[in-house]
Amino acid sequence: MLEQVDLSKKMDKDEYEKMSEELGIHLGELQREAWEMGIPIIVVFEGWHASGMAEIINRFLMPLNPMGFELYTTGKTCIHEEKKPLIWRFWTKIPKKGGIAIFDRSWYRRAIIEHFSKDIPEKEFSDCLNGLTYFERQLADDGYLIIKFFLHISQEKQQKRLEDIRGRGVPLFLAEEEEEDYIREYQRLMPLIEKVLERSDISHAPWTIVEANDLNFATVKVMVTFIRAVEEGISREEEQRKRKTEHARECTIPALCPSILEKTDLDRSLAKSEYEEKKKEYQERLSSLQYQLFMQRRPVVIVFEGWDASGKGGCIRRLAQALNPRLYRVVPVGVPSDIELAHHYMWRFYKEIPEAGHIAIFDRSWYGRVLVERAENLCEEQQWKRAYREINEFEEILANYGTIMIKFWMHIDKDEQLRRFKKRENTPYKKWKITEDDWKNRDKWGLYKDAANEMLQKTSTTYAPWTIVEGNNKKYARIKVLRTVVETLEEKFNED
Amino acid sequence: MLEQVDLSKKMDKDEYEKMSEELGIHLGELQREAWEMGIPIIVVFEGWHASGMAEIINRFLMPLNPMGFELYTTGKTCIHEEKKPLIWRFWTKIPKKGGIAIFDRSWYRRAIIEHFSKDIPEKEFSDCLNGLTYFERQLADDGYLIIKFFLHISQEKQQKRLEDIRGRGVPLFLAEEEEEDYIREYQRLMPLIEKVLERSDISHAPWTIVEANDLNFATVKVMVTFIRAVEEGISREEEQRKRKTEHARECTIPALCPSILEKTDLDRSLAKSEYEEKKKEYQERLSSLQYQLFMQRRPVVIVFEGWDASGKGGCIRRLAQALNPRLYRVVPVGVPSDIELAHHYMWRFYKEIPEAGHIAIFDRSWYGRVLVERAENLCEEQQWKRAYREINEFEEILANYGTIMIKFWMHIDKDEQLRRFKKRENTPYKKWKITEDDWKNRDKWGLYKDAANEMLQKTSTTYAPWTIVEGNNKKYARIKVLRTVVETLEEKFNED
Repeated sequence: MLEQVDLSKKMDKDEYEKMSEELGIHLGELQREAWEMGIPIIVVFEGWHASGMAEIINRFLMPLNPMGFELYTTGKTCIHEEKKPLIWRFWTKIPKKGGIAIFDRSWYRRAIIEHFSKDIPEKEFSDCLNGLTYFERQLADDGYLIIKFFLHISQEKQQKRLEDIRGRGVPLFLAEEEEEDYIREYQRLMPLIEKVLERSDISHAPWTIVEANDLNFATVKVMVTFIRAVEEGISREEEQRKRKTEHARECTIPALCPSILEKTDLDRSLAKSEYEEKKKEYQERLSSLQYQLFMQRRPVVIVFEGWDASGKGGCIRRLAQALNPRLYRVVPVGVPSDIELAHHYMWRFYKEIPEAGHIAIFDRSWYGRVLVERAENLCEEQQWKRAYREINEFEEILANYGTIMIKFWMHIDKDEQLRRFKKRENTPYKKWKITEDDWKNRDKWGLYKDAANEMLQKTSTTYAPWTIVEGNNKKYARIKVLRTVVETLEEKFNED
Repeated sequence: MLEQVDLSKKMDKDEYEKMSEELGIHLGELQREAWEMGIPIIVVFEGWHASGMAEIINRFLMPLNPMGFELYTTGKTCIHEEKKPLIWRFWTKIPKKGGIAIFDRSWYRRAIIEHFSKDIPEKEFSDCLNGLTYFERQLADDGYLIIKFFLHISQEKQQKRLEDIRGRGVPLFLAEEEEEDYIREYQRLMPLIEKVLERSDISHAPWTIVEANDLNFATVKVMVTFIRAVEEGISREEEQRKRKTEHARECTIPALCPSILEKTDLDRSLAKSEYEEKKKEYQERLSSLQYQLFMQRRPVVIVFEGWDASGKGGCIRRLAQALNPRLYRVVPVGVPSDIELAHHYMWRFYKEIPEAGHIAIFDRSWYGRVLVERAENLCEEQQWKRAYREINEFEEILANYGTIMIKFWMHIDKDEQLRRFKKRENTPYKKWKITEDDWKNRDKWGLYKDAANEMLQKTSTTYAPWTIVEGNNKKYARIKVLRTVVETLEEKFNED
């Protein structure tokens, strides 16, 4: 992509000043329009060292309203970032609806650096690029505009600028000393950059190569490209909104759902003495396993989903009792806040993933989209249908990073739920646990069962399998949860 | 405070289980009550090494609803934290209304470690403790409950437990290796801890010494103390709400305000040629000064306040043009979000302070409380009256950390404002800048002027002085701003 570029393009000062002023006004207007329509925009800048990136970005920022954008300079990772998958630091920085996030170096920088300096195996490099592709596709599916620039200069220009920068005593990389090594490696870097650009040049997030030997020309090209992309994005969005008002034909016969849950034997139970004995045993094993996890820097994600009153809280408490609060966190997932609703659905969950060596226990989770949001029509059909893939990709990224994934579906039958609801209503300090919503959800038992069955089928993966817990008997359920966690951890340690 | 403590206190298992269950139910109920009333609670745990802190905290957490609390383990600082004043990492973690933040080690840990290991001068130690005192008082003033525990054990107990921990192969400090040095320094640490406890035992945030030789007794003491404090807090809050409905007597004659702004000569102006020349000169100087700042790791805060249409944006753009976007950020301050309103007023500003070596330019700021919020009755009188002190303390903390503070009041007269409002209305791409609110604020010119005068008087400090910018002539104003920034930076560099 870079070889054919004509780097001789130029623009003189007067023409630049005239054009950039006009384009700037246009840009400001488009920013307000996208803001009002709630279209989120991501702008990525990559490029050679000394390609003038800081100057071009600064000029691009001038006509924008600072209220609506955020600039992120991607430098060295800090200790928190090192304990999370690469893409975490970018997921957590995506803009909300109507906002603009500008990345001065991006997720590609890491891929290039790692590959260049550490000579990682091709497979790992591919995994990494795949992860980046998931990220961009998931955002684009959700209506994010992604505009990517690569600032291209010639080797001679680069040498001249580097000398000039040194001459002026400007610190070269600010926070990026690690790059010093290969700053002069133009020729060796070229094929690698070509490969990265080619493999990540996808229709919903294409690259624009910017001829940056001349800063005026480069700035104008960035502005023009941005304006055209945002204009296109706005009209695409307008189209889609129009289409949504035309109703799709409704299906006349119901779908055939998988029936995984039918096979569950809910009669299993456990005597009190056996319960106490096993609980003690598993809690002790768990208690020492957590320190092994910590020392091996492996993160663990434990997910609890299931019917209302199926005993999630009780199981979580039996796990938590055995753990050091410095190493685990219970993450209760409820109704999303306004700010969470203004981001991609997965954003709030990326923010909660555990550090390497820590355990996150989710009391309900990202599966809400294919359960409650589906059953209650809280999202569009295409959103929850898309979510199976989004979820699998999310869990794949966690698993590739070394995360041990354990997922429980707490299963009870309708009669047992009724008994528990009534008991809650009759116990003063448990009454707050039961609300109108619980009774309402109960009326939709069939809808929820279909959703659960489909979820269990579509999101049981090799890297993140589901465990169905027969929950009518609380003691049996708690021991099954404890045992599954302990045995999964021990297994994973033996694998390594 | 520690010498007189009777460490022989104990509780047997049966009594503990009975009591902790009852207290747990009580605790859960109080958590819900405080949540509904919107009372934020901060719980601090400090104590000796091997005082059983993790176990006691975990037992304390069990009856709480995870939806309403957050546990923070204070370990080593990361690179971002090292570039901010000590208290920043705690300010950013305060709970929102109704929430509970639990600190496993806290702001005191830093004070103790620094003092113990680096032997810092008494003056610095006092400054540090003062900063912590500001923090707690400001929160308490805003209705935060602060409950502080020191877990006390004897030296013999400590030695026994440390051996036991080592025997079980548990990693001792998790993320806190830096403490290894003085873990056995019980006797040398004692007087230092005594001093810290004494000087920070204040009525709105008192310490409770917990006898922790026996974990059962300690847990029960923590629970009982917490319950009593929250009950007290709730009834105090109820009292206050009652009192607020009784109206205070209104003053019949207006106050005499200081008249700092009257003395401003708004006729100053600058010719175009001189403007262009000076602008170029100062921008070049600023451009190289920013790298000096970066290399010396000094943060800069530049604040812009002033009348609507007084030219803040134009001045900010002239500064920004000269800067590297990796080293500065414009922070526009608008209407607070719901989540910001649910925290202490200063919370949102702590989140925006610049890293060491960076420049933050605030387009409006924390002065909103004593300007617009005062003039428009958006907060209570006692809140904006209290804010002068809160603001001065905030800026003192920044200045003590080495931050260079530059504050501009952009001043124009009423006629000039009218001219500019009309011009905005008649320029298509500037029309969005002028709203109903601007015209409404203009009607309250007198109220705003009184507020500005009082603000300029009460918040001009040696460490963060105000500069009044005569703004009727835009060219004059822009050069004055550029010159003030450049000269202040040069002065500060010469001081060092």
